Formats: sequence, structure tokens, C-alpha cells
Amino acid sequence: MSKTVSILGATGSVGQSTLDLIRQHPEQYEILALTANGNAAQLAALAKEFSAQVAVVADEGAYAELKRQLAGTSIEAACGPDALVAAAALGAEWTMAAIVGCAGLPPTLEALRCGKTVALANKEALVSAGALMMAEASNAGATLLPVDSEHNAIFQGLQGGRIDQVRKITLTASGGPFRTWTREQMANVTAEQAVAHPNWDMGAKISVDSATMMNKGLELIEAHYLFPVGLENIEILVHPQSVIHSMVEYRDRSTLAQLGSPDMRIPIANALAWPDRMTTNCEPLDLAEIGQLDFERPDENRFPATRIAREAIIAGGAKPAMLNAANEVAVAAFLNNMVQFLDITEIVTRLLDSYSPSEPSALADIFAIDKESRVRAEQLVEELKV
Amino acid sequence: MSKTVSILGATGSVGQSTLDLIRQHPEQYEILALTANGNAAQLAALAKEFSAQVAVVADEGAYAELKRQLAGTSIEAACGPDALVAAAALGAEWTMAAIVGCAGLPPTLEALRCGKTVALANKEALVSAGALMMAEASNAGATLLPVDSEHNAIFQGLQGGRIDQVRKITLTASGGPFRTWTREQMANVTAEQAVAHPNWDMGAKISVDSATMMNKGLELIEAHYLFPVGLENIEILVHPQSVIHSMVEYRDRSTLAQLGSPDMRIPIANALAWPDRMTTNCEPLDLAEIGQLDFERPDENRFPATRIAREAIIAGGAKPAMLNAANEVAVAAFLNNMVQFLDITEIVTRLLDSYSPSEPSALADIFAIDKESRVRAEQLVEELKV
Repeated sequence: MSKTVSILGATGSVGQSTLDLIRQHPEQYEILALTANGNAAQLAALAKEFSAQVAVVADEGAYAELKRQLAGTSIEAACGPDALVAAAALGAEWTMAAIVGCAGLPPTLEALRCGKTVALANKEALVSAGALMMAEASNAGATLLPVDSEHNAIFQGLQGGRIDQVRKITLTASGGPFRTWTREQMANVTAEQAVAHPNWDMGAKISVDSATMMNKGLELIEAHYLFPVGLENIEILVHPQSVIHSMVEYRDRSTLAQLGSPDMRIPIANALAWPDRMTTNCEPLDLAEIGQLDFERPDENRFPATRIAREAIIAGGAKPAMLNAANEVAVAAFLNNMVQFLDITEIVTRLLDSYSPSEPSALADIFAIDKESRVRAEQLVEELKV
Repeated sequence: MSKTVSILGATGSVGQSTLDLIRQHPEQYEILALTANGNAAQLAALAKEFSAQVAVVADEGAYAELKRQLAGTSIEAACGPDALVAAAALGAEWTMAAIVGCAGLPPTLEALRCGKTVALANKEALVSAGALMMAEASNAGATLLPVDSEHNAIFQGLQGGRIDQVRKITLTASGGPFRTWTREQMANVTAEQAVAHPNWDMGAKISVDSATMMNKGLELIEAHYLFPVGLENIEILVHPQSVIHSMVEYRDRSTLAQLGSPDMRIPIANALAWPDRMTTNCEPLDLAEIGQLDFERPDENRFPATRIAREAIIAGGAKPAMLNAANEVAVAAFLNNMVQFLDITEIVTRLLDSYSPSEPSALADIFAIDKESRVRAEQLVEELKV
């Protein structure tokens, strides 16, 4: 029996990894919808290869090209934000929500409303709208499967027990390329230095997040929503080799950890086949070859991002969404050489302190907070500009 | 609702650890039988503390003392091998089988025949009579829970999937105190040096087994019976810190590992509460404090024990029981300064090559093989005597 699948964000790295796994087991999956931002040619090729029912580009300017590429096939072409939501509403048994940024929020929420299984790779969904997302998933009886390597590791560790039996969750962090650097050394970091992540091959934004450790701050917020064990029971542990992807300690003091090679297909395969396990051709882990794993406590004086994130969770309401928006603006400004490396967390801190919008109760509130936070963060960039 | 519990081997370290856990949750357990070898005073004290129904000493010479100690209580006293079996036959919902040596085989088998849950700490049961044990457990519908830290770690890792989804099981090994030594250096090892285990506080026999790595050979045999993934899919990995107690790699290349402090109560608690998880006061794991975990491939030229064990599994039949018997004789001879350290595996190898009894089909066959192997191993000790 095959499983119906939709992939929101099919041309990105998570979408492509998902399709690569489906390619290895074509008889087990039936594709309903594939969506992309604007790459109509690539989307059309994938839609044809996997005999999708629907292909959607978010960018309306790419629609003509998509239609042209799909002419003569039975695949329906569509475009725009409403079409994204309609694609999510097709009700696939399994949906990969991998659209980057706030644009992914409406279709992700729609997929959750279908009450099926949603694999979540869109960080913004949980960081900016965690309470909404979790409430929607719970109301609809949807199953939310995290595919971030850390959260997927925690999810796997939780197979060994129940969440109320957990004493502590440990989120591992590579520590980034400046793990051993002083604040003084980090002051003059270039964008080029910051995007060289030691373990994973990632985009520039995520690499900078890794360098500031704001990625771990964002993951802390996600973990807080996904795994309600109490913020004080979620710990961050620096582990430069990123082999142990995260851990769950139970009340009997047994710790279950998930380990693996740095290949996103491994957590995606876990989510795709869950509760089964599929065969992949990913590189097996060879600990004897790796030889050594190191661990150290995070230093929040040198890397304040995780402390800022924890404070945003405690403050609650709009703060996590504000943090996410400010960080995106600040990282973009750093990558454009407009502000310095240490200004990134400075901008986030100042933005969080600058105003306190009321608690968001709908997606429209999140978007308004996101928009205003970006405008204000841009002003902070201007103030700090080098 | 409380669970009825019997502990076969209540005065040994595993038995005492089990009772220590029960002591922390007295309302959840009701003790049926407690047994000991010959320490009547200690057994009687425990039987009174836990209001056991029956207390049994294996040694008939300790019976009078046991009766005297239990006079005036409603606890039934008994002695001898048949009484041990009768204690196991009481049909506790949960039985800890922790009697050391072949004396533990009949009561362990009897406990399995009751079709309830048996926590297994008696290595000889699986090493010498693995096929019999597993067949008996399967016939009776009994649940066998391993409490060796390695096998319990594998059991916990298997909560993340099914055994037919496993690609590889990795048994971790401390490597013992001579991990970095050459054969030449090991030739002159003293008993005192061999009993100093780096991570666990253990008895002399087990410490020597750790030093020769025969403990890992015995565990390989146990793992082979407990987790039928194919011998070629069970790997040994040297990990001096013994923090990762073992690992399970699934076909999707996710590896689940169990980690914990070196405290036997952690795996015992897992078995005692399974499928629930109990609270313990064991030391939580602090990886940042530990700092570093190392891994290396085992060197079977310097430490041939695991190779010998693998060959015994492949040869099958009586060979694993012969290996166990020969190893016990050889270790005792080494501890008595009668043979040298490297003679231990030499004696085991020579014994395995010396004769091939037919496949044991009943416990009596195992006992006969064990007895003859010991006589022959003693002769080999004489030949090699220093």
C-alpha cells in the first residue's frame, strides 16, 4: 500500500532529500502536490518524474513557465499563496513542510488542519508561531514529526518512553566555527569565515546562525514547543563533532541518544517511514574511524544567543517571533557587510527590548509582528552600520 | 497495583541493587521468593525487611541458621537445588535471575517456563544454554529482559524499531586495563593488575574477563541469542570510558545508543519497571564533565577472546558451554598464580579444539559438558603451570 505525499518546498535541499528517498522506494509513495518558490523548470521536471497531481509555484511570475513545462501532461499547474494553501489542503497522508520563512506558515498550518502527518522542516513555523501550530495540530489530531536532526533525534529518543518520564532533554550544538574564539576575536569575523560550518554543508543564513549559536537558540524554542518537558529541563551541550544529534534522559537515569552521519536524509527517512523504518543508502556511522567525541558546556558570555532565546521563551507572547525576524534582518545585514558579527545578537537583544506587542492569537498577528520587527530591526542596522 | 517479584540470588550485587530499587518504591512490588547461596543471616534479614513469602538457601548447610533466623515469622524457609526451582515456580510476575554459575540454570529455566517476565543477569544461562533458554522462553511466552548494561542498552535501543529493521548492533567494550599493552607486556601481568577495572567496581572473575576481553566474548554469545540479527551484524567497538553502553543501527542509518553512569541499578531499573520507567536516585550522566569519549576498533591479535567466542558461536552445539567452563577454570588458575595471563585464552582455545561433544538437547547435557570441560581444562592448567 502506498502513502500519499505532498512536499511543500520541493526544490529546496530538504525537499530534494525527501524526493531522493522516495526515488529509492517509488512503489511506496504517491505524490499529490509539489510546490516551489520560483524555480518552475526544476519543479516541473520533478512533478513529471514523480507523476504529481499538482505543481504550485509561490511566485506568480513563474506560473507561465510552469504551465509551459507541464503542457501535455495531466499535472495541474497553479501559483500564488492561496494555491500553496490549496495544495496543503489536498490532505496527503504525509506532508513535508519545508518552505523557508514565514511564507511557509499558512500552508503548514493548513496541512496540520487535515489531521494527517506533517514532517516539519520549517523552523519559522515553530519559532514564530509555536503555540498556534501546536494548538492546531492538537485540535486536528495531526501528527507532527520534526526533521531537524536535533529534534528528530529527540523524537527517536522518546520512542524509549513517555514524555512525562523524561528528566532532561539535551540539545547538542557543534559550537560553530568560533567555538574557541574570544569575543575580541569574534568582533572582526568576516562573512566568509562565518559561513564555513565545520560539519554540515548548509546555506549562508543557517551557517551564520550556527556561528552565533542562534541556530541553537531557535532550536531551543522549537524544542520547547515540540517537547513539553519544561524549559528548565532542556539543556544545551556543545559537541563539536555533531555525531550525537541530541539526547533524552529518563527518570531512571537512562539516556537515549540518536547518532548518525551528517546527512539530512537520515532524519527525513525517519519521518518519511515512521512508524516503520526504511532502508537508505546514507553513509553508516563509523565511530572507530571518527575516534573521538568531545563535549563542553556552552559559554553564554561569548555566545549569548541561547540565553536570549531562553529569555524570549520565558517572556512568551510575540517575543519568539520578534527574535526570529530580528535575527533574519541582522544576519542579512552582516552577510552584506553592513554590520559586524557581534552586532547580530546585539540587534536581536535591542529589538526584543524595544517594544512588546500583545500576544498573537492568529496568523495575521504573527505576520504583523514579523513585519514590524523587520522594520525596526532595519533601523537598528542603520544605527549600528559600520 | 503492585507487581509480584522473586529474586534468585538476592544477596549478590545484582540482587542487592534490585532490592535497593524496590526499597525506593515499596508500594509497587510484592516479594514472593528471595534466594541466596549460603548467607542465611543476610537472606533472612532481607526476607523480613521485604516480607517475602519464601526464603531459600542453595546450601543445605545454611538451612538450620535460616530457620532459626526466620523463627516466629510467617516466612517459609527452604533449602537445596529443588527448593530453588520451586521458588522460581511460584510464578512471580517479574523474576530476577541473578544466581552466578551453572547452579542458576535450573531455576532460571523454571522461571521462564512460568511465562512471565524474567530479568536475566546470569551470564551462564545464555552462554552455556542459550538455545535451550530462548526456546523455553518462546514456548512459554515469557519475556526475557537483559540486565547486563550492554544488552540492556541494546534492548533500549530496540525500542526505536523492530529487530528486522536493524542493520548492525554495536557492543561497546572498555578494552580493560591492558587496552594499550603489547602481548609481550601482557605476558607478565599479575592477578592484582588484572582485577583493577577502569570503570566498574566488579568481582575478580569479571575483572579478569574484562582484562582478557573474554567478557566481551561472552557478551557476544549472549547478544547472538538475545538479538537474532545475524552474527556478522554484531560488532564490537572499544570505548574506554564505557559511557555509551551499546548501540543499535537501523536500516535507515539512524543509530540509537543508551548512555549512563556506571551504575548497575540503571539497567536493572529499566528491566524492573519495563514497560514503564521508574525514578531512581542514580547519578545522572554529565557529558560536559566527562569531556571526551574515545572509540577504536578491537585488536583481536592482542585480544583473541572475541575471535574465539565468535568461532564458538559459529561451531555451535556444545562449544559456547565449553568456552564458558574452560574460561572459568583458567581465570581461577590465573588468580591462584598457577598460569599466566595469556594462558587464559590459550587454555580456552586448546579446550575447544580438544573434543567435540554432541549438541546438548537438555539441561543434563549442558551439565555434563560443563563438568567434562572443567576436568579437561584443569588438565590443561597442569600442563601450562608455571
